[in-house]
Amino acid sequence: MPFINLPEGLPGITAGFNFRPETAKPMRELAHILLHDPNSLTSGERELIATYVSSRNCTTFCELAHGAAAASHLGDADVVEKVKTDFREARISPKLKALLAIAGKVQQDGKLVTADDVERARKQGATDLEIHDTVLIAAAFSMYNRYVDGLGTWQPDNPEMYAQMGKHLAEEGYRTPSTREPVGAGA
Amino acid sequence: MPFINLPEGLPGITAGFNFRPETAKPMRELAHILLHDPNSLTSGERELIATYVSSRNCTTFCELAHGAAAASHLGDADVVEKVKTDFREARISPKLKALLAIAGKVQQDGKLVTADDVERARKQGATDLEIHDTVLIAAAFSMYNRYVDGLGTWQPDNPEMYAQMGKHLAEEGYRTPSTREPVGAGA
Repeated sequence: MPFINLPEGLPGITAGFNFRPETAKPMRELAHILLHDPNSLTSGERELIATYVSSRNCTTFCELAHGAAAASHLGDADVVEKVKTDFREARISPKLKALLAIAGKVQQDGKLVTADDVERARKQGATDLEIHDTVLIAAAFSMYNRYVDGLGTWQPDNPEMYAQMGKHLAEEGYRTPSTREPVGAGA
Repeated sequence: MPFINLPEGLPGITAGFNFRPETAKPMRELAHILLHDPNSLTSGERELIATYVSSRNCTTFCELAHGAAAASHLGDADVVEKVKTDFREARISPKLKALLAIAGKVQQDGKLVTADDVERARKQGATDLEIHDTVLIAAAFSMYNRYVDGLGTWQPDNPEMYAQMGKHLAEEGYRTPSTREPVGAGA
């Protein structure tokens, strides 16, 4: 039960976005740039970082929405589950493992990141921009997750709803809400 | 020493913003709407929420920049210090105290916020929009703080620099960087 009078029937962040379109716009724009715009990290890899951070924050809506987007990009739902439970054993690149280690520290506290963490990522081929974007994805999901949880939004756990949402996000990104709200939107 | 090749001589978030202008734009826009645009909470009150969250995250740059912006808006530096150390005894309204209690929970974990916390704020006159914006300011500074710390940015502690920066932010807001970089910008 949401703590304030959010629009009914909209899950997770879509309820906050509909309540306050002014703040939704830059929040959607940031997610679009970080997760959907062209990047040397694939969208699938970046959605895995978002999923991992959301999973560590136990924010069901974001974890399942971005997990579904990652699965849609990668055509592989198993790797998403493995990244959440034990990313070091997942079928992902050594570079992405080093970036997830940084993201996990940012999720707790940015001050935990060390020069060694960054050097390890660089040795696996990570560029400065990839390291920057990993830090910012983890920081941004520290915001999105708290926003979804702190408003007491409705966070359903219907896998079919998230599968549809993930497919839409993977195809269209985050810039504009879908006409198929409530299923089609969400950061 | 920053972990990646950030532009030299720019403190805190201004270094990240200059490194990646694409993401800086929506991050600046969000800060401007939350802290500077007209609102039934004054800019001084909203800057106090930002300062309190940044102080709890021990992110020097954000704590001192937004503390200086709050002091500039309110014409009172003492109240800023009191909010950081013991807001319940600060010379601020009972409504703002109830909102700071919510912000402090969001800073830790959005799931800690309860219906009782929100009801207490409402009894002191807080509107749904004020509660929404308090949750989002606290969530957004969970991002800005992690971004500043996770990149290992330079965070000076020169009070005069922050006093100038706070005055500029209080007057101009966050939408566009000052021509007086590095002193004039920062979220």
